[in-house]
Amino acid sequence: MEIKIACAQVEVRPGRPEINLRRALETIEEAKRASIDILIFPEQLIPGYLLGDLWEQRAFLRDCRDYGKDLIAATQDICVIFGNIALDERAVNEDGRPRKYNAAFIAQDGKLKKGGLSQAFISKTALPDYREFDDSRYFHSLAKLLPHLPGKTLEDLIQPVSVTIRGKEVKLGVFICEDGWTENYDFNVPQILTKNGAQLLINISCSPFTLQKNRKRGELFKKQARDCGLPLLYCNGVGIQNNGKNIFTFDGCSTFYTKEGNVLCDAPSFEEAFLTGSFDTETGALSSTGTVHPKMTEIEEIYHSLYYGASKFLDQLGIRKMTIGLSGGIDSAVTAAFYVHILGPENVLLLNLPSRFNSSLTKGLAQKMAEALGTHYAVIPIEESVSLTEKQLQSATIHDYGTGKDETLSVSSFALENIQARDRGARVIAGMASLWGGGFSCNSNKSEMTVGYATFYGDIAGVMALIGDLWKHQVYALGRYLNEQVYHKDVIPDEVFTIKPSAELSQKQTVGTGGDPLHYPYHDYLFRAFVESWGKQAPEEFLAWYLDSTLDARIGCEEGLSHKLFPDAASFISDLERWWNLFCGLSVAKRIQAPPILSISKRAYGYDHRESQLGPYYSRHYLEMKAKALS
Amino acid sequence: MEIKIACAQVEVRPGRPEINLRRALETIEEAKRASIDILIFPEQLIPGYLLGDLWEQRAFLRDCRDYGKDLIAATQDICVIFGNIALDERAVNEDGRPRKYNAAFIAQDGKLKKGGLSQAFISKTALPDYREFDDSRYFHSLAKLLPHLPGKTLEDLIQPVSVTIRGKEVKLGVFICEDGWTENYDFNVPQILTKNGAQLLINISCSPFTLQKNRKRGELFKKQARDCGLPLLYCNGVGIQNNGKNIFTFDGCSTFYTKEGNVLCDAPSFEEAFLTGSFDTETGALSSTGTVHPKMTEIEEIYHSLYYGASKFLDQLGIRKMTIGLSGGIDSAVTAAFYVHILGPENVLLLNLPSRFNSSLTKGLAQKMAEALGTHYAVIPIEESVSLTEKQLQSATIHDYGTGKDETLSVSSFALENIQARDRGARVIAGMASLWGGGFSCNSNKSEMTVGYATFYGDIAGVMALIGDLWKHQVYALGRYLNEQVYHKDVIPDEVFTIKPSAELSQKQTVGTGGDPLHYPYHDYLFRAFVESWGKQAPEEFLAWYLDSTLDARIGCEEGLSHKLFPDAASFISDLERWWNLFCGLSVAKRIQAPPILSISKRAYGYDHRESQLGPYYSRHYLEMKAKALS
Repeated sequence: MEIKIACAQVEVRPGRPEINLRRALETIEEAKRASIDILIFPEQLIPGYLLGDLWEQRAFLRDCRDYGKDLIAATQDICVIFGNIALDERAVNEDGRPRKYNAAFIAQDGKLKKGGLSQAFISKTALPDYREFDDSRYFHSLAKLLPHLPGKTLEDLIQPVSVTIRGKEVKLGVFICEDGWTENYDFNVPQILTKNGAQLLINISCSPFTLQKNRKRGELFKKQARDCGLPLLYCNGVGIQNNGKNIFTFDGCSTFYTKEGNVLCDAPSFEEAFLTGSFDTETGALSSTGTVHPKMTEIEEIYHSLYYGASKFLDQLGIRKMTIGLSGGIDSAVTAAFYVHILGPENVLLLNLPSRFNSSLTKGLAQKMAEALGTHYAVIPIEESVSLTEKQLQSATIHDYGTGKDETLSVSSFALENIQARDRGARVIAGMASLWGGGFSCNSNKSEMTVGYATFYGDIAGVMALIGDLWKHQVYALGRYLNEQVYHKDVIPDEVFTIKPSAELSQKQTVGTGGDPLHYPYHDYLFRAFVESWGKQAPEEFLAWYLDSTLDARIGCEEGLSHKLFPDAASFISDLERWWNLFCGLSVAKRIQAPPILSISKRAYGYDHRESQLGPYYSRHYLEMKAKALS
Repeated sequence: MEIKIACAQVEVRPGRPEINLRRALETIEEAKRASIDILIFPEQLIPGYLLGDLWEQRAFLRDCRDYGKDLIAATQDICVIFGNIALDERAVNEDGRPRKYNAAFIAQDGKLKKGGLSQAFISKTALPDYREFDDSRYFHSLAKLLPHLPGKTLEDLIQPVSVTIRGKEVKLGVFICEDGWTENYDFNVPQILTKNGAQLLINISCSPFTLQKNRKRGELFKKQARDCGLPLLYCNGVGIQNNGKNIFTFDGCSTFYTKEGNVLCDAPSFEEAFLTGSFDTETGALSSTGTVHPKMTEIEEIYHSLYYGASKFLDQLGIRKMTIGLSGGIDSAVTAAFYVHILGPENVLLLNLPSRFNSSLTKGLAQKMAEALGTHYAVIPIEESVSLTEKQLQSATIHDYGTGKDETLSVSSFALENIQARDRGARVIAGMASLWGGGFSCNSNKSEMTVGYATFYGDIAGVMALIGDLWKHQVYALGRYLNEQVYHKDVIPDEVFTIKPSAELSQKQTVGTGGDPLHYPYHDYLFRAFVESWGKQAPEEFLAWYLDSTLDARIGCEEGLSHKLFPDAASFISDLERWWNLFCGLSVAKRIQAPPILSISKRAYGYDHRESQLGPYYSRHYLEMKAKALS
């Protein structure tokens, strides 16, 4: 018999169970009209997933439970699998709050079906507690239940769920998100389900987009389907969710895998979709008229996730207009072109804010861009205000009530750099944004964020750091992509790509004579290794790799570059420690107060990469190696 | 036989294993000179505890292991118990990184002693994953080990450690921090240890200070000693640690409990101490010449924790000087008096920054305070700069490259309020701080933070929010305490306590004619219930309590106040929703970008109380109740 199955790749709105229920009920009606037998929704369909400590609010939890009951009541003549919180108010979690599980419910004809637990839900077994995930903070686990079920093993608790479709019994192996990522766990949920009789594997997920993640998921899930010899249906939602410091996109990309471990069909990324297939109960084969979407390149993935994430986040905040400082450099150029693309030129205000240090080249480029984008543009020189500030701070009489003496202070050139940056950000841009309406943009990229090459309350400010998770080379690539694939013309003038990056905050920092202290083709890759490597590499690894000439290959920069830039160990060490000190020092303080970052990498600053202010640490082994290398 | 035991309440420096080892070695020598048999150190003595994702850095972990070996090597003729990471590089945690445990080590004569595990360390059993704690993110657990040890139970793994002191065997029941907080766990580690033969219970902790926590710990630990019939030694460290958004103090307060459940002696709070006692192996009795320190009042606890925390945090950052905006209101007055107390009047610069809206009363109070504190003081009017900004923003010609038209915008009175706040914070205070040296202070209190009654990049800025975890009434109490107990004179003039709080940012907001929209004697307590209640109460509870007249008693404000302020449900609901919308709305965005908060309450904003930007949610039940109440 052929069973018709559909995966509903719907948008999940975090913290809005009433909206999620409404969308689910519409989808159930749609599925019934299409004679679907089994309808699959994502993990945490009703509450959403990244909710912070809203997971502790009882009124919200009770509502999620009750909206879940409404969904169950709507399952006449259909089997529906969906994610929700399972609330057990008779017991407590280890934090003393009502016990709750990250659960899957299987409902049919208004009733719930049972798996291996005494209650009628499936609990997530593998609770991720890394990156942005805090499952153990909120959810109870089978591992904690087990010691209180004498004689029971994990294998007893992880059972397929039996449903009867048009008179035919079929055993569904339902599992939740991380339960499919079996690499580092001591148990393998899909294999346990298979051993216990499952005929079909169903993974419901609420899995954020990460660059390269889908490739890994594809390999892993193909292998699982093949190893288990069962079709595997992966159902993921779309939408955005955030954890305060990070905004994550959910790309969907729901996929059906055959029992041979091939991709049968998949849903598009970043849009709602309804993926259907047919399961033959006799042969165990899955078929579908769906297609397989072509793989995206890295820059396509970056573009799509940023476009989707930024659009949705602005929508959620009710922001329709943006103000953006436009210096003529690449970061603000890409940010401006992106927001014009999202909001339309009629809703974007670009501000060029020159001081005496800004070149006519960059000022000209800014204007050229505004013209090419057809958007709103104003030039507001900051020279008068910066001079007033300089004069006012220097002439302020500080009276010492201890000694009775008066003094004045003087403005250093470094202080003046930051005064300019804050004048632009906190005075003009924030001020103009409140007049223009909407929000203003933080244009910082990940390379700058890594070492705090930005000013508190100056350029580290705004509603969202759109390119805050992009390395400088990715910013350039995104700029090219916008010109070529989105605008089909050079809205970002070619010179913006070719001039040397510079903050233009002093005579020494100009596009003509100076520039940023970073050599991006090297430092981008070194910094990426600081933060994105899974084993969190530290100076002892970098120095060892420099010394044995494997550094470039290991961090991924151009071969030979590190020894070209740093011909001897002393210069290498001096550069490494300069940036490591900043990475572990003042830049942490800056990131703590930075705007939310639209996150795309496998490690974004904020709640994904969590940091204490501790200062730099150099290991014993590093200090020994350094002493030897310098002697 | 009498065994001499000492608890070393040392300072633990997070992320600095080499410093912690040095302090431990000094202490071991000290203990040997005092003929101590068993020396107890706190949990995570070597690495520190709140390290963020530094826990993932292999070079750091290897160093902690190696420094631990150095400590073990120094235990000739003494038994030392200490906390450290236990690293098992042959296995992985569920995140794929090397497996690690939050562990206690028992070393004697250079060798480690074994408990119930196959390896020679004690693992923490209860891993806290609430508030600022993320143990499951970093550490492996017995619950996860158990399914792979067929036939074993938790009782088999939790065993006392046998040591021989001058020929006499004694069984030490060593457990770690949360293992003593048995309320919500399905197992009771002290009782298991007792059942398995322990003669003495030893809890090593790395437990942050929280208002009221020690009272709870006292009750719990007394009961445990009594129930087990064994002496209990609680060893906690001192120092500060942070999780980025929150700075926590560690108060020590190590305590010896008798087997009858009485406090035998304790160590002082917020200082290093060496608490000694004697254990009689025949009678099982613990004795000591130590004393019991008197309990502190709430305001004493607040004062001591803030003083200790702020001093240590500034030290750690290398900040010796502070600049503080001084308005003449209570928040900046208390902040200023506190920093002068910490750093000395010679290192503090107070800035009064009047606009046309500031009254001569508050300007006079600011000057009077500076004089009373004998510190540095300057008046820098912001009128000229604010006017320049107003003029510049209004006259900026915005060219629309779409339509070819030009326009200008106008500054609203609300925009002007924020322009003033940012002019003070980001222009003058940040600027003067960079000239004066050191940092500048964020003067926001918890009541304002709760509803975002503060300006981005204006008053929400600075190195640290010293009073960011204090409700307005606690700020007043702290001000009185500073006058009476610290300065013994009115450095904060009496009028500062009696004037109506006001932001003085417009004609409507002045000390004479207007003031803050908050009625602190009520809203302080309502807001406290928003954030500090364990069950995270929501509008449905507040409305129900208002309607049945139990609200005042439940939130702790003056009896009758809510019905006096809001004679009918409509006015109550309107006020509640106004603040709830802000609490769940824009104020979350402000807190995400706020400075680190010196945390003292049982729920501080930041990493303790984690938040997603979701917007307000009103439950079904609330909406029904509201409709009924308004009909």
